[in-house]
Amino acid sequence: MTLQSKTHTATAQAHPNIAFIKYWGNQDNRLRLPANPSLSMNLGDLRTVTTVTFSADLPGDALTVNEQPVVGPGLERVTTVLDLIRQQAGLELPARIESTNNFPAGAGIASSASAFAALSLAGAAAAGLDLDEASLSRLARRGSGSASRSVPGGFCQWLTGSDESSVAVSIAPPEYWDLRDVIVVVSQEHKAIGSTGGHHLAPTSSLQAARVAGVENRLKLCREALLARDLAALGPVIEEDAVIMHGVMMTSHPPLYYWNAATMTVIHATLQWRSEGIPVYFTIDAGPNVHLICEAADAPTVAARAGQLPGVQQIITSGPGGPVRLL
Amino acid sequence: MTLQSKTHTATAQAHPNIAFIKYWGNQDNRLRLPANPSLSMNLGDLRTVTTVTFSADLPGDALTVNEQPVVGPGLERVTTVLDLIRQQAGLELPARIESTNNFPAGAGIASSASAFAALSLAGAAAAGLDLDEASLSRLARRGSGSASRSVPGGFCQWLTGSDESSVAVSIAPPEYWDLRDVIVVVSQEHKAIGSTGGHHLAPTSSLQAARVAGVENRLKLCREALLARDLAALGPVIEEDAVIMHGVMMTSHPPLYYWNAATMTVIHATLQWRSEGIPVYFTIDAGPNVHLICEAADAPTVAARAGQLPGVQQIITSGPGGPVRLL
Repeated sequence: MTLQSKTHTATAQAHPNIAFIKYWGNQDNRLRLPANPSLSMNLGDLRTVTTVTFSADLPGDALTVNEQPVVGPGLERVTTVLDLIRQQAGLELPARIESTNNFPAGAGIASSASAFAALSLAGAAAAGLDLDEASLSRLARRGSGSASRSVPGGFCQWLTGSDESSVAVSIAPPEYWDLRDVIVVVSQEHKAIGSTGGHHLAPTSSLQAARVAGVENRLKLCREALLARDLAALGPVIEEDAVIMHGVMMTSHPPLYYWNAATMTVIHATLQWRSEGIPVYFTIDAGPNVHLICEAADAPTVAARAGQLPGVQQIITSGPGGPVRLL
Repeated sequence: MTLQSKTHTATAQAHPNIAFIKYWGNQDNRLRLPANPSLSMNLGDLRTVTTVTFSADLPGDALTVNEQPVVGPGLERVTTVLDLIRQQAGLELPARIESTNNFPAGAGIASSASAFAALSLAGAAAAGLDLDEASLSRLARRGSGSASRSVPGGFCQWLTGSDESSVAVSIAPPEYWDLRDVIVVVSQEHKAIGSTGGHHLAPTSSLQAARVAGVENRLKLCREALLARDLAALGPVIEEDAVIMHGVMMTSHPPLYYWNAATMTVIHATLQWRSEGIPVYFTIDAGPNVHLICEAADAPTVAARAGQLPGVQQIITSGPGGPVRLL
């Protein structure tokens, strides 16, 4: 077919997301079908821009992230997604993938969600495929589970189900609620065990079944609070859900201790500030950094206070973000 | 009866204990019947000495701890136990209770276990009762659940059951295994919510049922490791059990965050030291302080290293201890 002999390129942008109800553990590790539904907010001020170029001139898939070549497992995950695209498009060309983030590498902000969302759209477009949102979310999921949630815009829920049905859908657009994620960076160390490995360990914790069993209720409370723009209802649920996930992590075999000293400092500070009347709540992903969720009006105060805490290296603030899109 | 008109006094000594398998939550709050069996080591280097004097000259029960008068809830708990003794002895005299600890007050080491074990024996003896170990353990339990484990000697298991059967029994004498508890004191703050209040909150955590369901297996592993003097088998179980309890605490309604920044520092240091070949494991009670469990030979190294960590205020080391006894 003609595509084989030409160069095809496309560029897409996607945002990372912060989960209010966490994804931890899979029903199917290869397909990344999650053990439970999850809910997140795209982070509009943070971006990954990815260009995919299929070209017969390449010896094989070649990946750069922030202009640095990536090989090994990082490249293999990208190739897995591109293979699904090539298969669907009937394409056999290798690809050059150039991905850049506007947020600091190693700041503990997971770039895999935005990276695989952007890769899916850029790759599909470059291959001449016109995929709908559900198909893109499904494709992104195969590279990184949470990437499924970076495909639709705003506040997104990722459904459990089969390979066909486990996709994310937007439950409110980014302008629905002007929340802020004040990201308190307390460590820039590379994680000893990344999320993919962690998901595989989830079933080894004696608390994982209880976590999964409780998600339905927490997700319902979270969704209702979100739709009511009720931070006082949303906050306690996201804190509890995050702590339950870390309880599972710290009791898996082997245990995963993502929290460090500064993580606890920020947790206690958050409780203290709340007792002083500032409506701010924390959530924590698979790492030590703390995400402080508050209304836009309180974000400057929260960011200023967090920046004064011992062990805090950097503060990055983001509001809600839109869907993946072509540039 | 003659006892009514005389002064009767007795003095007893008891040790606090550190739980390897934790007690958290009750089946019956008033009787302090625990939600699950637990297992602990008495701390022989730490002591509470309590003198109980029944006397018609007193206006009512009067308590001093380390020579400071105690009234309110602290005195009421003591009176609850003394009432059980008075009832059994047919005694109606008020009592003076003088209790002293050889470990620093407010160092975050729970004195209620040793205090109620010593109170039970001193009170019973002063009242002319000759109670067996099981009866004393039952009595101590009514003042503080973990006090039941400070009645027998060495390594003790506290059984679930009825008011009659829920007592602690020794499963190995103190000389059976020369372990050390290197207590890393990171905070001397008074706990916002004490253990009694915490036990009442345990059922509000969505993880408590999973914690209780898993205790049987962890207790079996712990007991086998103890009887085999196998620290490499004991350690991971006590760490997991402690973290599970704190997972329950942090997800109760309201949540209880006992860990602070230095707690996490000590946890990570423990993992690091272990990776360097030092066999040491942590456990944490209802507070921020970390108990490092190791063999006697490694205790000086562990204590020296722990003393260098930021946020550490004091190190207290103890070996195994015997049963409550009259002085």
